[in-house]
Amino acid sequence: MTYKLSQITQALNIDFTGKDINIDGIHTLREATSTQLSFFTDSKYASQLPDTKAAAVLIDEKHAALLPRSTIALITDEAYLKLALASKFFAHKLESKGEEPKAGEGCDIDQSVRFGKNVTLGDHVTVLAGCYIGDNVTVGSDTLLHPNVTIYHGTHIGERCIVHSGTVIGCDGYGFAHTKLGEHVKIYQNGNVIIEDDVEVGSNCAIDRAVFGTTTIRKGTKLDNLIQIAHNCDVGEHTLCAAQVGLAGSTTLGRNVVMGGQSATAGHLEIGAFATIAGKGGVTKSLEGGKTYAGFPAIEIRLWRKMQAALMRLVKNR
Amino acid sequence: MTYKLSQITQALNIDFTGKDINIDGIHTLREATSTQLSFFTDSKYASQLPDTKAAAVLIDEKHAALLPRSTIALITDEAYLKLALASKFFAHKLESKGEEPKAGEGCDIDQSVRFGKNVTLGDHVTVLAGCYIGDNVTVGSDTLLHPNVTIYHGTHIGERCIVHSGTVIGCDGYGFAHTKLGEHVKIYQNGNVIIEDDVEVGSNCAIDRAVFGTTTIRKGTKLDNLIQIAHNCDVGEHTLCAAQVGLAGSTTLGRNVVMGGQSATAGHLEIGAFATIAGKGGVTKSLEGGKTYAGFPAIEIRLWRKMQAALMRLVKNR
Amino acid sequence: MTYKLSQITQALNIDFTGKDINIDGIHTLREATSTQLSFFTDSKYASQLPDTKAAAVLIDEKHAALLPRSTIALITDEAYLKLALASKFFAHKLESKGEEPKAGEGCDIDQSVRFGKNVTLGDHVTVLAGCYIGDNVTVGSDTLLHPNVTIYHGTHIGERCIVHSGTVIGCDGYGFAHTKLGEHVKIYQNGNVIIEDDVEVGSNCAIDRAVFGTTTIRKGTKLDNLIQIAHNCDVGEHTLCAAQVGLAGSTTLGRNVVMGGQSATAGHLEIGAFATIAGKGGVTKSLEGGKTYAGFPAIEIRLWRKMQAALMRLVKNR
Repeated sequence: MTYKLSQITQALNIDFTGKDINIDGIHTLREATSTQLSFFTDSKYASQLPDTKAAAVLIDEKHAALLPRSTIALITDEAYLKLALASKFFAHKLESKGEEPKAGEGCDIDQSVRFGKNVTLGDHVTVLAGCYIGDNVTVGSDTLLHPNVTIYHGTHIGERCIVHSGTVIGCDGYGFAHTKLGEHVKIYQNGNVIIEDDVEVGSNCAIDRAVFGTTTIRKGTKLDNLIQIAHNCDVGEHTLCAAQVGLAGSTTLGRNVVMGGQSATAGHLEIGAFATIAGKGGVTKSLEGGKTYAGFPAIEIRLWRKMQAALMRLVKNR
Repeated sequence: MTYKLSQITQALNIDFTGKDINIDGIHTLREATSTQLSFFTDSKYASQLPDTKAAAVLIDEKHAALLPRSTIALITDEAYLKLALASKFFAHKLESKGEEPKAGEGCDIDQSVRFGKNVTLGDHVTVLAGCYIGDNVTVGSDTLLHPNVTIYHGTHIGERCIVHSGTVIGCDGYGFAHTKLGEHVKIYQNGNVIIEDDVEVGSNCAIDRAVFGTTTIRKGTKLDNLIQIAHNCDVGEHTLCAAQVGLAGSTTLGRNVVMGGQSATAGHLEIGAFATIAGKGGVTKSLEGGKTYAGFPAIEIRLWRKMQAALMRLVKNR
Repeated sequence: MTYKLSQITQALNIDFTGKDINIDGIHTLREATSTQLSFFTDSKYASQLPDTKAAAVLIDEKHAALLPRSTIALITDEAYLKLALASKFFAHKLESKGEEPKAGEGCDIDQSVRFGKNVTLGDHVTVLAGCYIGDNVTVGSDTLLHPNVTIYHGTHIGERCIVHSGTVIGCDGYGFAHTKLGEHVKIYQNGNVIIEDDVEVGSNCAIDRAVFGTTTIRKGTKLDNLIQIAHNCDVGEHTLCAAQVGLAGSTTLGRNVVMGGQSATAGHLEIGAFATIAGKGGVTKSLEGGKTYAGFPAIEIRLWRKMQAALMRLVKNR
């Protein structure tokens, strides 16, 4: 999808009088290309302004001077809200119309499965009853989708993956801008999900598509049931998440992380490789790899055990 | 559905010899109309007895005298169990038979979607593959149901709503009476769910129908994935619930409440407007609005932070 | 499925030169029959070795001498990994092909429901739109499956059960062996699930099939929404689990256990009859029945209340 910048700015009620250009997407300051729109909503990213390649940036007046000369400043006091409004331009058009997928050899597709447009399946892919596979999805060879799985548009699934029933991959991340009246305006989630090879996802999980870019589940990772992976997470290779785990947005797990049942992380954290989070743990800050953590807020498990012992003494002394 | 009171009392094995009347439903003492049955199972509601408009009340002998003269006392020592048995009379008859919905202009309905009877869709409603929409459901204009959504009978969904895949709206609340032998007898959940305008519900959520009356999700509220909303909750306008939140039955959230991931509330609580519950928080009593709470049991976050600091000192001093 | 032992050992790269035999399954040392393969992976089960009836056992050299003479020792340093590889031989072959079920009188089956082979339904079974019922499943009389339920192969569901939408019964348990490189090798879950009579399961639950043997939900148990029951659990009669509960693998609940919302147990525990776990509780060891527990790690609730009081004093003294 491509729009004239003037079309977008008019819808956003933002002044723009320069030479018109084509815009084909939205991304962060760091990732935006010279045909994309970007936004500046948090002063901690001010240092990224001079280096952005974005064609145009939604930005407050004060910081606009930091942009490179080649980037158009779109001045606004509500950059996040304007971003939400702009995101709708690039939302995928959802419709019931589909077409036969391009399928490799030896696929077994139940007659009830519904496909969007431009779906590609590898060889020996099995898709059981009631699955839905959206537009532009690719599924690698020897992958098995159990009944009633939903794959949203643009998702890529690797080879030898298994996805259990009821799981939803590529649904919208949870992102909203807020008006002064306390209303929430949807930021359309125009990124996607990539599931690499040899991943297994349990039943009734939800893996959100990225707002921009990609939510990634890396090679060999195994997710149990009822797990939440929020937008823009990056789950490292050979990671294990037990049932009911939740990862908030933009959190990165290194390889071979282990998360116990009902454990969770806050957003925008980094959990180092080979870290283990005990069941019910709640991670509130980035954690070094190779260690085991427990509790909420999660601390090293030997400290947590001392804490539990101290708590029991507290009770028994009275 | 209407039954003779004598039919019901006979099935319940309760004496009733007065003039027979028609009963068309069951509701609480406060809400029951003059053609409905009610019940008295908790002495804290004794003050409501004299004012009930119910046609008849399941009640113990001791309290029966408090009922108005126009209300028939159905004397029993097991009012809650009898209520469960009576509730089955008014259960919606579920069957596979359906019919074409009444649909407005420009709707896009996948051919695999199954409808119950008497479904009404507004204009430009999109219903993608594998959805089920039960009897007597209404869906407002411009609403989008992603694939594999299930809407139980009697649910009303507003305009411009988005419901993501795998979500179930209107399933039975969790309500049982218990026999002396420890068996559980289903209280049929004969209420419904109302989702107001501009609500978004994530993937694989469960929103229970009310036992009587309505479970309400108010205008502009946004729910993330894997959320549990129990029967008879009332979720205020513009509320935000992150993934894996759980609300127990009959809890009311004011407007613009924010609940962090995996947080939860007990039942029958009131959370004031603009309250925030941090992730993993567990609310065990009603909370004043406008403040931020954390922990389990949830307390004000500044107290909770002091508590965490004290706990860390406890560990480090040893 | 039956294989020559030599076929299996060749695939596993294990020496076996004795008289060849037929193997028709895999089970634990205690449960394996004389035509099954077993494995020894944990020295705490050494005492079971002399009494096993298994035809052959994957075992390290040191312990092999403890096996009875009639049992073939398959010597390996990686018995758990070899077990994983062997388990694939006995995995059920999943395919889209199905056939009309054998159905009793008065069943109401939506036309969109898809069946595997050899499905048997009792009388007056209702199966609503979008359900999938896999090979060799039996469903008892008067049972109701709401729309979009998935029942994997080999599951048995009793009479008068209710299963709400989105729930998945019989999906794979979460079991993997690990290579020295940190990769995870699937242990095919070749057991099944048995749901006894009068059980109700809420929406979007996941009940895993056993790795060997059976995951059992006993008579009269009622599960709320979004619940995880892991492989090989045994949930006692008339148990109540509120929403978002999680049971880890091989845990046994006695009869009439009550688990509050978001509570969970670790694996391989026994929770005694009539025990209650308060909401958000996390059970880390086996618990005596008849008592109420709270917190994480869960302790008796009167202790937990003292602990909370002590914590509040800790904060207020500063």
